[in-house]
Amino acid sequence: MKALVYHGPGERAWEDVPDPEVIDPTDAIVRMETTTICGTDLHILKGDVPAVTEGRVLGHEGVGVVTEVGPECTKVAVGDRVIISCVTKCGTCEYCRAGMTSHCQTVGGIGWIFGHLIDGTQAEYVRVPFADNGLIPLPDGVSAEQGTMLSDILPTGFEIGVLYGAVKEGDVVAVVGVGPVGLAAVMTAAAQGASKVIAVDGNKFRLEQSREFGATDTIDVNAGGDISAKLKELSRDGLGVDVSIEAVGIPATFTLALDSVRPGGHVANIGVHGESVEFPIERDWINNLTITTGLVNATTAPVLLERIQQGEIAPQKFITHRFTFDEMDAAYETFANAADEHALKVIISRT
Amino acid sequence: MKALVYHGPGERAWEDVPDPEVIDPTDAIVRMETTTICGTDLHILKGDVPAVTEGRVLGHEGVGVVTEVGPECTKVAVGDRVIISCVTKCGTCEYCRAGMTSHCQTVGGIGWIFGHLIDGTQAEYVRVPFADNGLIPLPDGVSAEQGTMLSDILPTGFEIGVLYGAVKEGDVVAVVGVGPVGLAAVMTAAAQGASKVIAVDGNKFRLEQSREFGATDTIDVNAGGDISAKLKELSRDGLGVDVSIEAVGIPATFTLALDSVRPGGHVANIGVHGESVEFPIERDWINNLTITTGLVNATTAPVLLERIQQGEIAPQKFITHRFTFDEMDAAYETFANAADEHALKVIISRT
Repeated sequence: MKALVYHGPGERAWEDVPDPEVIDPTDAIVRMETTTICGTDLHILKGDVPAVTEGRVLGHEGVGVVTEVGPECTKVAVGDRVIISCVTKCGTCEYCRAGMTSHCQTVGGIGWIFGHLIDGTQAEYVRVPFADNGLIPLPDGVSAEQGTMLSDILPTGFEIGVLYGAVKEGDVVAVVGVGPVGLAAVMTAAAQGASKVIAVDGNKFRLEQSREFGATDTIDVNAGGDISAKLKELSRDGLGVDVSIEAVGIPATFTLALDSVRPGGHVANIGVHGESVEFPIERDWINNLTITTGLVNATTAPVLLERIQQGEIAPQKFITHRFTFDEMDAAYETFANAADEHALKVIISRT
Repeated sequence: MKALVYHGPGERAWEDVPDPEVIDPTDAIVRMETTTICGTDLHILKGDVPAVTEGRVLGHEGVGVVTEVGPECTKVAVGDRVIISCVTKCGTCEYCRAGMTSHCQTVGGIGWIFGHLIDGTQAEYVRVPFADNGLIPLPDGVSAEQGTMLSDILPTGFEIGVLYGAVKEGDVVAVVGVGPVGLAAVMTAAAQGASKVIAVDGNKFRLEQSREFGATDTIDVNAGGDISAKLKELSRDGLGVDVSIEAVGIPATFTLALDSVRPGGHVANIGVHGESVEFPIERDWINNLTITTGLVNATTAPVLLERIQQGEIAPQKFITHRFTFDEMDAAYETFANAADEHALKVIISRT
């Protein structure tokens, strides 16, 4: 089969590799129909994730059809059309039983292994471990493109931004950084009943797009001024927003998220950070704040699927560019230049 | 009447001051029976809390009897024996309605005003604003000494440590720093069903005492070694404790609390900090942590009173020294030298 193979920093190729096979009795093989590229894949290509070794097939998102199952699969069957969850989980360890599949101990403590520790989904076929837990049936009325947004990005924005941030009806929510994952937080915060969703970014295209995803207000950080003061002005009473969702991953945006939240508020960090941040606890010890971090558990697919079916969220809005498998190189080039290309998510399809 | 008056940094006197009077129709006057001294009072005396001006009567804890009520008091009546909550709250602002009385907007955004912005409880009489909300009837079977521990310290350990830390049945809990407020967290974490409560401190007296409060294990930080590694060894599976409660307020202890917690764990900060801390979010963005801070809401008195009545917690254990009002100077001297005096909480009584 063909697959997108990592050959060390800066090197990738869409090339022939052996077809995957069932290894463990809980495995399934899925014939990929659609996949996409995540910012994490770009990090890997920069050499930022040393656990990814040369020869690894990348990708952890997609939709396909089951072509083979191991003898211990009881829920998935050949012919099922499925969403591949980006998180692999045994379903039986303490973390899985507690719903925190992101830290499944059986797969090594971090549930993200596709395109990282095992071969991934940017391929014609993929082996899915613990397939009963990692494959989500694609219901009628939900397209493969929509389903692909449920592998990672939409659950990440919803679980780590909105649910960890405890967004509730009527809340004023700031989303700091409205790249794809920030937009997923915008979309699901609006669906959760937030009264205001304020998008903060320096990219005019993304700020414009954020309105389509449910943002009620936008703040362009390049327009100058005190951004946290602007956020407080947009809050109910000037005290700050109820929830600040950080979706960038640098100290300045984390600080902005902290500075803009009201006493009793929540700061939900989604951003992947490369350096430590200063926490002004001499100011905030008294402010009854809750700060959360996290890798997605990807356990909310049923909730999100229902919202898609009911027309409450429309994840196809993420898809700005479409390619076929043999255009994988062009897809990567477009996504790597997302700002210039006005790209959010790219879809790469078999046909 | 006599009261303990702040006269600027380092200066205090037990001296004559005018009797308090009902000013607002929701006020009550309480004749104090018992009071105590908090670490915050010592901070004020060092000049660390500039909002406290010369002439202020200190103290925010105690038990007494209502001697006068304003015309709009409907719940408290003359003759009631009451616990004075350290938090003053209007009961009607958005924060009070949400149960976050610590940030009552009517009293200025921070509910702690006794011995801070208005005269406090280290006095023969005290004026209590919003008396219907700030006075808790002392039930039969609960002593004035026990009740005094419900003004601040026990709710602080319980609400900001145990409840914000989401301690649940079977959890392994570390309490970093077992001064009085740390011990309050130890006591209430044990009562909450924690399977292990690990006390961490450098003071042998406090570590010994912590066993009386429910600690199952103790770690002496002066014994050397890697403290976070020791805490992980005491956890269920070596991954770290479920909840780390920080009850000191310096960067090293906050860092230890963060370093010792497992993926998915909670770090509940109770400590009052004077400088910022480094948050290694480049490590923890993926660890699904919840970090909380806060000033006590003091809304859990009913729960704690019931636990006292049922014999599940025994707050009289805090009381190591007893004085009368006219020994207020000696009480302060003992509490200011708590380590040498082996003091936890001092009780100062009218007779």
